[in-house]
Formats: sequence, structure tokens, C-alpha cells
Amino acid sequence: MEKAFLELISSQRFREVLAGFPPLAEETVALDEALGRCLARDVLSPEDLPARPRSSMDGYAVQAADCFGATETNPAYLDLAGELDITAVPTEPLAPGACLKVVTGSSLPPACDAVVMVEHTQDLGGGTIEIRKAAAPGDNLMLAGEDARAGQPVLAAGSPVRAAETGLLAALGILDVAVRRRPVAAIISTGDELVPAGDAPAPGQIRDANAPALAALARQAGAAVLHMGIVPDDLEALTRAIDNAVDQADVVLLSGGSSVGVRDLTVEALERLADTRVLVHGLTVSPGKPTILAQSRGKAVWGLPGQVASAQVVMALFGCPFLAHLAGDAQAFTRPRPSVTATLARNVASRQGREDFIRVRLEQTPRGGLEAVPVLGKSGLVKTLVQAQGLIRIPAQLEGLEAGTIHGVMLL
Amino acid sequence: MEKAFLELISSQRFREVLAGFPPLAEETVALDEALGRCLARDVLSPEDLPARPRSSMDGYAVQAADCFGATETNPAYLDLAGELDITAVPTEPLAPGACLKVVTGSSLPPACDAVVMVEHTQDLGGGTIEIRKAAAPGDNLMLAGEDARAGQPVLAAGSPVRAAETGLLAALGILDVAVRRRPVAAIISTGDELVPAGDAPAPGQIRDANAPALAALARQAGAAVLHMGIVPDDLEALTRAIDNAVDQADVVLLSGGSSVGVRDLTVEALERLADTRVLVHGLTVSPGKPTILAQSRGKAVWGLPGQVASAQVVMALFGCPFLAHLAGDAQAFTRPRPSVTATLARNVASRQGREDFIRVRLEQTPRGGLEAVPVLGKSGLVKTLVQAQGLIRIPAQLEGLEAGTIHGVMLL
Repeated sequence: MEKAFLELISSQRFREVLAGFPPLAEETVALDEALGRCLARDVLSPEDLPARPRSSMDGYAVQAADCFGATETNPAYLDLAGELDITAVPTEPLAPGACLKVVTGSSLPPACDAVVMVEHTQDLGGGTIEIRKAAAPGDNLMLAGEDARAGQPVLAAGSPVRAAETGLLAALGILDVAVRRRPVAAIISTGDELVPAGDAPAPGQIRDANAPALAALARQAGAAVLHMGIVPDDLEALTRAIDNAVDQADVVLLSGGSSVGVRDLTVEALERLADTRVLVHGLTVSPGKPTILAQSRGKAVWGLPGQVASAQVVMALFGCPFLAHLAGDAQAFTRPRPSVTATLARNVASRQGREDFIRVRLEQTPRGGLEAVPVLGKSGLVKTLVQAQGLIRIPAQLEGLEAGTIHGVMLL
Repeated sequence: MEKAFLELISSQRFREVLAGFPPLAEETVALDEALGRCLARDVLSPEDLPARPRSSMDGYAVQAADCFGATETNPAYLDLAGELDITAVPTEPLAPGACLKVVTGSSLPPACDAVVMVEHTQDLGGGTIEIRKAAAPGDNLMLAGEDARAGQPVLAAGSPVRAAETGLLAALGILDVAVRRRPVAAIISTGDELVPAGDAPAPGQIRDANAPALAALARQAGAAVLHMGIVPDDLEALTRAIDNAVDQADVVLLSGGSSVGVRDLTVEALERLADTRVLVHGLTVSPGKPTILAQSRGKAVWGLPGQVASAQVVMALFGCPFLAHLAGDAQAFTRPRPSVTATLARNVASRQGREDFIRVRLEQTPRGGLEAVPVLGKSGLVKTLVQAQGLIRIPAQLEGLEAGTIHGVMLL
């Protein structure tokens, strides 16, 4: 039986293997479809943004030199040459000693090099504005091209499009975006005992909980999901199902069956497929030891651990970043994971040489901090993951963690 | 001008006001539509899960008393009474002194109270199994109802459906889920200078970047978005637009226009609407000071700060949790936010009495940690948010943060 785990590899080595799969092809999508996708190319600005200098405050457009040394007690006095509404396009240079009333966003005239905030001025009437604060060139305005300069890169290939990137692309009028294709994940559940969640299980049968849970994780990671159904513990059937899934999807996620026989069956099926190689056969990670990874016709086939909770943890730790990597995220494996800091509520033991991920429940402490309470329970139970809000990592070289120590908790 | 900010309130008070809006109505959706939605009611288990005791390991089903004191050097010997495949439903009680070969997931017979892992056994042939490790009742098996007990609550109203909850609901055969309705957010951009991102701006005009960015944030928070277009700086037009949006949506997000005149216009428009009350008129938060919140016919109308970056930060800090609250998330305002821990790269000043949120870029340090580098730049620029990966909070009572100190960075 131990044959299956002769060459356990570390999580770091596993990530290196996963990173060896190339990202998916490029496609162009409309900006409002780009959210969460990753840029396939650097984006160059087609123009200067802003196109011309603009005020970033309500106040008066000035020549900074005219306000040199101005203070509350020693103000400068400028001639009000007019008022610029938000859409005005002043072409006449601002004369020395003059100012123009502006609002936030007003385009500024040539020769104006600063804006004084209205709070630091007083309109004395009769066309005279009192300036009570010195201005330096560049104060309270945005220079032409300060946000983006024509022809220069503004966004880098491999970065995800968040709200901020959406805003910048819109501001530049870029409504078609070159991104990487979304991965398609085919989900296969294996096991003679499984029935679809919609069926009533006969005695000895159970409902397939893995496929819906893994589909949820894959969708959260940005993938589209193909449900390939349940395959019995039969070599022919399993081989055909994997072959078929590799045809249709970018990633195949096999789950169900944590008995040694079923795991061996998966490896046997993979070895029968053309152009297929088992790359990983066990991890020095708990949960996750029985994880299998193969490359079949260039695509990744995952044999996830059979226990429901283990499969979900492996998917969250490695599968979801892998899907993001395929989707073109250059930092899929290196970006810090969303987490919170919490105090461990009790001692947790771990075996040296094995990297452990402990499920924890988060509780607010009376002092306002968070306490991480390990969720105990057998690995076959579904409820342990429902009770957990996150994972604490115990590095391979440690024998455990002590109660009262502070840790990052990766959010689930 | 300062009139507009006479009653600045703290972020905590703001959250209390927001929490006063009731969550949206309940609806029933299919399980595969429930991901990310929040449960409207407690979920009771319709049955025991598992329905009968199951092995959680490959090995032998035993009576624990028969293996009492068994060790490598002093093993116990049991009679092999047969083999249970994964779908077998044994009804005959296990006899004392006997064992049954089982795989992970096998249903266990009456009178069996433990499973010994195959690693701690040897099949001596001739129907005798050597047991090399003592077993305690309950070892390596799941009891009937250990995951969920018929009639007992397994999931609580107000909790979001993640992958783990999806798995549990599938395991219980619950394919219709009572959740809260997704909020519909109407997005209105105001400003004479704005053109839609698809149009070529004439001199003096700029493209509307706020609507696409805010739509992206609202969608990430689970809302559906209604784009209501651009409204000029005109009291009649703005009043009509808000009125119309309140009719169609659960939340109205107004943005654009950071000049004082435009902000005053928004308040004036709100005051003209029937059954409408301005609840919040400025926050002791930066960015975010000019935030407006009104209740109109029971719905929330937000006047977001006009500066693109400020609007997005306020939306991320308060607007997105508010949308989650409407969607039924009982912990929308209290759940710890995804963050990472980083060392601040330089001193940052702050004004006492004002809660500051500093945009930071995250950089890997040679030692493997993260450094948070404040992103400088004028508030009107779009690129500062593109460069930032997160926000560091400076509490109101502090005058700043020192370089080298360690902080949580809320991820954007």
C-alpha cells in the first residue's frame, strides 16, 4: 500500500510542478466582462490622462509666484479674471497677478501652475481675491499625463482586473481588454457508493457531496465547471471518463474514493491513457497526502483526496491558485493569501517533516482580538469544514504550535 | 461651505446607521445558485448523516474489546468473517472474536464499535487476522448522525454559503435553499463634464470612470448592477434620476462631482424627494469625508465622494459590507476582513480625530515578509488605487504610524 506514497513531495515542489503548466490562450472581452480576469498583455495608455491640467480642488487658479510668502497676516491680492465652470476649456494664458475661480475638475489655463484652495482665500468683492496661503507650483492640480502618459504601460500583463483597473481602463476609453481564457474544470466523482445529491440513496449509498463543493471552489477561483457525473469503481469506465474529460476541459478534478484500491485505480486509469504522465503521487502535507497529479495531453488531471474535507482543503490550498495561474494570474502562487491574525486557543501537535493545515474556528475575544479554535473531528466528516473559517499552517520543521501564540489564519 | 460637514460621524457610528437598514426579502434558489448567497433561515438536517456507522479507514471492523491491549509484540488474533465492499449493508451483528475487512466508507455491522487500520494488521491466511494495535470504541469510524442529526440545526440563518456549506447541503440532499435576495445597486454618475467611457471626450470633458469601477465593486459584493447613466449638474435632472433609481433598485450609488456645489446639489435633490431623509453628511474618515447617506422610501441612497479613488475606498470600506448586509450576511460589518500583515516602509502622518486609510503597495522583502509602501499621489488620480494592493488603517486617536511597525493590510 505504501507504494502509492513512495515519492511524497513538499507543497513548494508541488507548486513548482503546477507552475509548469502554461497559462491558457488569450481572448478579448468587453471591459464589463473583464472583472476578475487577468491581462494577457501590458496595457499602454492611448493618450495622456488627464488630457490637460485640471484642478483637484475648489479654489482659484494662480501663478504660484504671485502667492509667494502669502499668509493669514500677510496675504497676497489677485485680480479675479473670471470663473471656469467644469466644462470650460481656457486657451488664454493666465496673466501675472490674475486668478480664475475654479471647481474641482476644471481645466486650467496656460501659465497657471497652482490652485489655492477656497478655504485659504476670501473674495473681497470688486474683483479682488485675498490669498492667505503660499502656493507652490503643482499645488492642488493634476498635470496633463500625470495619471497616464500616451504610449506608456499603465497595467502589466499577468495582473488581475480589479475595480481599480476597471476604472483606469474606462478612464482611458479602453473597452476591449485582452485577457486569458477562463479555465474549464471538469468534475468527476468516483465511487460505487455514490448517488447524485438529487437522488435518494439506497442503504449503503451516500449522496455525492464532493462534486458540488469542488464546483463551488472552482467557480470562486474563476473557472467554468463541467459536471461529468459519477463513475463507478471500474477501470474501463474511469479510463473512458478521464479521457472524455481531458477532451472537453482544461483541468480534470477527480474526487471520491479514499480507499487505497480506488486510489490505485485512478493511477492505473491514468497510466492507460495516451500521452499521459503521473507527475505527483502524494504530498508531505496534511490533509492532502493522497493527492495525485497527472499531465494528460498537456492538461492537468487531479486525483484529489477522497475524504470530503481533505479534498476541499487541497483544492483551496493548491487547486484554486492553479486555476488562477491557468487564467493568467502571474502571482497565483506567490500573492499573499487573504488571512487574519489570531491567537491559537490550544496546543496543536504536528509531525515533523509534514506540513499541517489545521482547520480553525474564529472567535472574537473580549479584548477585540480574534482567537483561533482548532476544529476537531474525524477527517471523513463534512461538518468540520463548515465550522471552520480558516486554516493555520504548521511548517514541516515544527512539532506543533503552542496555545497563546499568534498566527495568520488563511480564510476559507 | 463647512456647513456640509457640520456633523461628521465616525466609521463606527456610520456602520450602526447602515446596519439599521433591514436585510432584503427571502427567496428560494437551487443549490448551485446559492454560492455566495446568505441563508435566510436556519437549516435543519432532514436525516442522520451518515445514515449508519461507516468506516473512515481501510482496515478491519472489530469489537474494540477483542483488541484490548494488542501491540506489535503481543497482538490479538481475530477470525475473518468476510469482506464488506463499499456498497454492502451488513445487518448481521459482528460476532465476538470476529472481524470484517472494510474499505473507507464501508457501512459497519451492528455490534462493531471500532475499525483497526490495515497498517496495524496482518492477514495470516486461513481466516486469521493479526491485530497489532489496541482499538478504543469509536476508533476510525463515523457514528450514525455524527455529521448531522435529523431535526437538528446544521447551518445558521445569516451565514454565507461557501463551498463547505454547499457540500453539506448536497450531502443532506437539500437542493433548494432559502436565501436572501441579491441587492440591486443603481449607479448614477453626475457631472456636466462626464461622457460615457465609450464616447470620445471633447476638450473639457472626461470619461466616466466611476460608474464602471463602482459597478465592479458592487458585483464583487454580490449585487446586481443597474447602470442609470450620467446626469448633468442640474437639480431637476438629478432629483428625477434619484427618484427613478430608488424605484428600481435597493441601493442607489451616486458618484462624480467633488466640487462643493455638486455635493450641495445632491443634498438639495435628496431633500426634495418625498419620504426621504439625509442620515449622514460627512465622515471623520479619510478618504471619505464628503460621504452622504440618505434613506429614501426605505432604500439607501449613497452620495459617494467625487474623487475616483476616494469613492472606491469608501465603497470598499463601507459600501460592499452594506451590500453584504442587505444580502443577509449577519456578520457583514463584524467579520474580520481579508488582510495580510506587513511592515510599514516609512512614517505616515495622520490628523488626530480622523481615521485614515492609507493606500499601500505590498512588496516581498528578502527575508520573506511583506513590506507596505504607502502610495503617494493626489486624490484625483486613478493610478494610486491601481498601484495599491491594500489599505492600512490609522485609528482616530493616533497622529501617525512609524516606519518599521507591523500592521494588518486590508486587501483591495
